[in-house]
Amino acid sequence: VKVLYAGDQKQWGRYEPALTQALAEAGISAEIGIDWPPDEVDYIVFAPSGPVSNFTPFVKAKAVLSLWAGVEKIVGNQTLTQPLTRMVDQGLREGMVEWVVGQVLRHHLGLDPLIWKERLWEQIVPPLARDRVVGVLGLGELGGACARALAALNFDVRGWSRRPHDEPGVTCLYGCDGLTNLLQTAEILVLLLPKTPDTENVMNAETLAMLPKGAVVINPGRGALIDDDALLAALDNGHLAHATLDVFRTEPLPLDHAFWHHPR
Amino acid sequence: VKVLYAGDQKQWGRYEPALTQALAEAGISAEIGIDWPPDEVDYIVFAPSGPVSNFTPFVKAKAVLSLWAGVEKIVGNQTLTQPLTRMVDQGLREGMVEWVVGQVLRHHLGLDPLIWKERLWEQIVPPLARDRVVGVLGLGELGGACARALAALNFDVRGWSRRPHDEPGVTCLYGCDGLTNLLQTAEILVLLLPKTPDTENVMNAETLAMLPKGAVVINPGRGALIDDDALLAALDNGHLAHATLDVFRTEPLPLDHAFWHHPR
Repeated sequence: VKVLYAGDQKQWGRYEPALTQALAEAGISAEIGIDWPPDEVDYIVFAPSGPVSNFTPFVKAKAVLSLWAGVEKIVGNQTLTQPLTRMVDQGLREGMVEWVVGQVLRHHLGLDPLIWKERLWEQIVPPLARDRVVGVLGLGELGGACARALAALNFDVRGWSRRPHDEPGVTCLYGCDGLTNLLQTAEILVLLLPKTPDTENVMNAETLAMLPKGAVVINPGRGALIDDDALLAALDNGHLAHATLDVFRTEPLPLDHAFWHHPR
Repeated sequence: VKVLYAGDQKQWGRYEPALTQALAEAGISAEIGIDWPPDEVDYIVFAPSGPVSNFTPFVKAKAVLSLWAGVEKIVGNQTLTQPLTRMVDQGLREGMVEWVVGQVLRHHLGLDPLIWKERLWEQIVPPLARDRVVGVLGLGELGGACARALAALNFDVRGWSRRPHDEPGVTCLYGCDGLTNLLQTAEILVLLLPKTPDTENVMNAETLAMLPKGAVVINPGRGALIDDDALLAALDNGHLAHATLDVFRTEPLPLDHAFWHHPR
């Protein structure tokens, strides 16, 4: 069995020993390399930053194993006729859950003014999580795990996916009506949809306006889920209280982008 | 049955209808008032801010019902011969869990520099919660609930109580050796001990020095658990990275107290 490493070539020094060891531990007799003739390759370990963009010469390949959870840079590739698998990583999921729960609690508890060190003695009593509606768009591997963790902390979690879905402790909505329904009640909104032609700009002027006044948008998903100009307008006119963004259309975020300077 | 409201007299207008309704809903035939003759009173609803400090005249009283979770202002009262109950409140517990988990995640994720709006493009990868040791001093009603919630988020939680205790998913330690053991490993330390003569200054120069360098102390418990001067010294010399304090020896915190100005 020949496995081609077609990820970032600078990372080969780190992947080679790790993959060799993992294959051995799994009892799989395979050779991993970066320069097999394409027609001899059985499996392709793939990242968009790697050297392969045309899958046609890999006539024997049984599968393409994407190193990333997001596969939007490969699913549209017309030369891909082999089965595609994507990464489901325990650490990635845990890290995402911790970040999302931390950011939701930051806004739920109203921590920012305290962290800015305003010198003020005031009793701040946020509502209990059970009285706080958190919307999660996307109930896949990551969105589902975040929704469950938030529900375990008693948040009133409403999750949305394109097709019907079931998560314990989460009010699951789907389709267009479901999306409207969720947005009209979500005080804190978490975006964990994949990037597809359908999800691009899912948060636009119209959908942002559906959120309750003072809502917070948290985007750990994909930059393209949000129409940047519509978001800035909603922050400027005070409809949204805050946007917490971990991803952008262009990364690193250009130095002259309005997001860098925006107080919210 | 006569119930005396001996809480904050300014709050009587809020307590009277709520208590009257709650007693009726519970099917208890009782009258609630603020000026019964002491020898006619069956139950006393008590807060330290109320008018009663001598329980001797309440010869018929079957119990004193404290409105607070902390009972340190009443347990030492020599005139108290009646049974004492304390408040166990679902909302109080939930609010505490949300605050503690939010503050732990804030420090775990390193959110402060991001919230201060330093304009910096940098990938920050905190360790996973499973690799972060959080110590919880006190495994009572509130400490136990916080320890369980943190364990549910995969933190490596070590809890301490005076006597042996058991919490699912939490490494439970007790006694002097257990305390030393816990402090030597806790990167984030949460203080939820009751205030008693034994717990006053439990965090002092010696015990603060046991914490790993760069540790964070979070105190939602009681101001008296910490020796203020020792804490300031540990922050100044860089041994501690941060202290997050929700309670103080004197409240409101005096305007000239060093805590107001300290960058950490």
